[in-house]
Amino acid sequence: MNQDFASAALRYHAEPRPGKISVQSSKPCATQGDLSLAYTPGVAEPVRAIAAEPDAAYRYTSKGNLVAVISNGTAVLGLGNVGPLAGKPVMEGKAVLFKRFADIDVFDIEVEARDADHFIDVVSAIAPTFGGINLEDIAAPDCFRIENTLRERLDIPVFHDDQHGTAVIIAAALLNALELVDKRLEAVRIVCLGAGAAGLASMRMLRTLGARDITLVDKDGVLYAGRPDLNDYSRPFAVDTAARRLADVLPGADVFIGVSAANALPPELLAQMADRPIVFALANPDPEITPAAARAVRPDVIMATGRSDYPNQVNNVLGFPFIFRGALDAQARTINDAMLSAAVQALAQLAHEPVPAEVLRAYNVDALSFGPDYIIPKPLDPRLLERVSGAVARAAVDSGVARR
Amino acid sequence: MNQDFASAALRYHAEPRPGKISVQSSKPCATQGDLSLAYTPGVAEPVRAIAAEPDAAYRYTSKGNLVAVISNGTAVLGLGNVGPLAGKPVMEGKAVLFKRFADIDVFDIEVEARDADHFIDVVSAIAPTFGGINLEDIAAPDCFRIENTLRERLDIPVFHDDQHGTAVIIAAALLNALELVDKRLEAVRIVCLGAGAAGLASMRMLRTLGARDITLVDKDGVLYAGRPDLNDYSRPFAVDTAARRLADVLPGADVFIGVSAANALPPELLAQMADRPIVFALANPDPEITPAAARAVRPDVIMATGRSDYPNQVNNVLGFPFIFRGALDAQARTINDAMLSAAVQALAQLAHEPVPAEVLRAYNVDALSFGPDYIIPKPLDPRLLERVSGAVARAAVDSGVARR
Repeated sequence: MNQDFASAALRYHAEPRPGKISVQSSKPCATQGDLSLAYTPGVAEPVRAIAAEPDAAYRYTSKGNLVAVISNGTAVLGLGNVGPLAGKPVMEGKAVLFKRFADIDVFDIEVEARDADHFIDVVSAIAPTFGGINLEDIAAPDCFRIENTLRERLDIPVFHDDQHGTAVIIAAALLNALELVDKRLEAVRIVCLGAGAAGLASMRMLRTLGARDITLVDKDGVLYAGRPDLNDYSRPFAVDTAARRLADVLPGADVFIGVSAANALPPELLAQMADRPIVFALANPDPEITPAAARAVRPDVIMATGRSDYPNQVNNVLGFPFIFRGALDAQARTINDAMLSAAVQALAQLAHEPVPAEVLRAYNVDALSFGPDYIIPKPLDPRLLERVSGAVARAAVDSGVARR
Repeated sequence: MNQDFASAALRYHAEPRPGKISVQSSKPCATQGDLSLAYTPGVAEPVRAIAAEPDAAYRYTSKGNLVAVISNGTAVLGLGNVGPLAGKPVMEGKAVLFKRFADIDVFDIEVEARDADHFIDVVSAIAPTFGGINLEDIAAPDCFRIENTLRERLDIPVFHDDQHGTAVIIAAALLNALELVDKRLEAVRIVCLGAGAAGLASMRMLRTLGARDITLVDKDGVLYAGRPDLNDYSRPFAVDTAARRLADVLPGADVFIGVSAANALPPELLAQMADRPIVFALANPDPEITPAAARAVRPDVIMATGRSDYPNQVNNVLGFPFIFRGALDAQARTINDAMLSAAVQALAQLAHEPVPAEVLRAYNVDALSFGPDYIIPKPLDPRLLERVSGAVARAAVDSGVARR
């Protein structure tokens, strides 16, 4: 990051007032009459209504459009375990994105509870406040147990974006990439480098969609059956193989998905992949391999990265605002696989359709049409709101988890 | 409450969108450039700054203007232990008041933790999020231990409005009432009916300001030394007396402060108070005695109630927004007695000054001047913000609890 950009980022956060969010009254509150409705004595009426019927909270309070972005700061961006307070700018940033893309109100909540059980207890206790919970930047493997336990315990959607948000976008982009190279998900060989929250959740999603041949590799090598350091969440992905290194498994593979670190994919390995390889190099800010380096050894590659300055940006903002919008619109009790699959299909489908002029203008391009450089919609595409949210809300209703 | 008003209150809460608050981005977020500052990669800069120096959170996040209104719903208005979810409209209403009167951003947090220790643990854990904590509608005596423990544990202001907010307004109104009847706080006999959060805190405040002769009475009678059901918080107010009933202690008293229940003060008892009695009948919505009933037996009474349709409304909104505004402006680590006393003095002083025309218009009155029917400023008086907040902030600095 250059110094000018760093200074601009600090200024943006500091001026004219610190921070990125504020809270507003959404009802009139100028006169004494207004205030007598907003507070005593008028407020007693909705209190009584909710005491009699808890779901009335969706009618009389902000709960139904309110998501908590909650973190304990144990895995903030690429910066690691910086703690809850230092993570606050990220959580506020997420609040900005939720509002900007899906008009969802977000309270960012930074929790001093680095122990998983303590964190679960705190989040459970404050859950009545919210219509949904977005877990953020929590280290693996704790994040898996935290999410699973909260999902079981609470009657509102609990969603760990670093897992499922990423998984949805990767899956949508991959379905489209496979279509372009005329391969079937059920038949391809997939190698995923990175076995943290994003890697495991993405591979779980691809399995749900039909993928059969998946090999995970982390910094210690292949996740093989019997590897002693695996945990309850990575073990189901271990494969029975003598291969130990990325170099042992990538030759001949159809798909490489990197959620690991800068430059982790050597060009000479990419060179040995199958015909028309698909490479998602998603490490941020520097990918596992740059598009230029990849094309130099494999002109037939289809690539995606996490960056906005290359084609095919796999960006979570394509998912979480709309997944939550759909879940909240349905007053869903959870976000289930059917809803996530619906989001995948809606995203994949949208990339096949003509792109409105306003999107072309926003990205300063003359044209965008389905093909190797456009396998996934652009984040500023206004159609995402209706398409993805609508698909998710319908799936919530169809799968029986909607309150209305 | 009549049916029309009740319907209007429900409509106000429900339409056009449920609830009373929303969250907004306070920084530009239209373009991809904006978003690169608000989220990745720009957000990494303030994260690093706060990781290096925690107080930088006041420069780069919304923390410094953000107050949590937190309740477990164990004592909501006069409705009792309705639980956290049913209390949400009240907490959102408080958020509206904080914003309206002092431009403070509030997250209302409803906590499912009716056990005091559990509640303390949850609030402590989420405290990094906030610049201050306003505890609300928590049953006595738990509220005392909860507040004390959180005040010790946290480095941000923790304030239980039902205690100290009420105490500040009562004290300010009482100082002015005593001035009008030419009596000294040190010399008067005070009887307080109600020994919950508001009663105990108000009497503590009056003691701090110099009151010496205070008798508390609750629904079981006088708090006398040795009464077996007293707790650690009420016991210090027990007096060595043979008196057991309100009727035993009120005759000859100078001041009656009611924070109890409708019609709890019989006119025949009021009739036996000292010359020019001061009666604060603060039960809501129906006072311990109405001004008309009081004047009928004692034309020389000076009265205050909790209602806006009588003169001298003792309303917490005169206090909490400005006390927190001052505390936040000073980046105070706590709200101490010096800050509360400063608020009392500022409120009492303001009632002596000429009232601006806009305030007269807001209340549709021709004149307001210091006297028996105007012993406390009006909530919609815009001077409160500068006067009270300024006094509190100065007291924070002078008493050494300000961060800046």
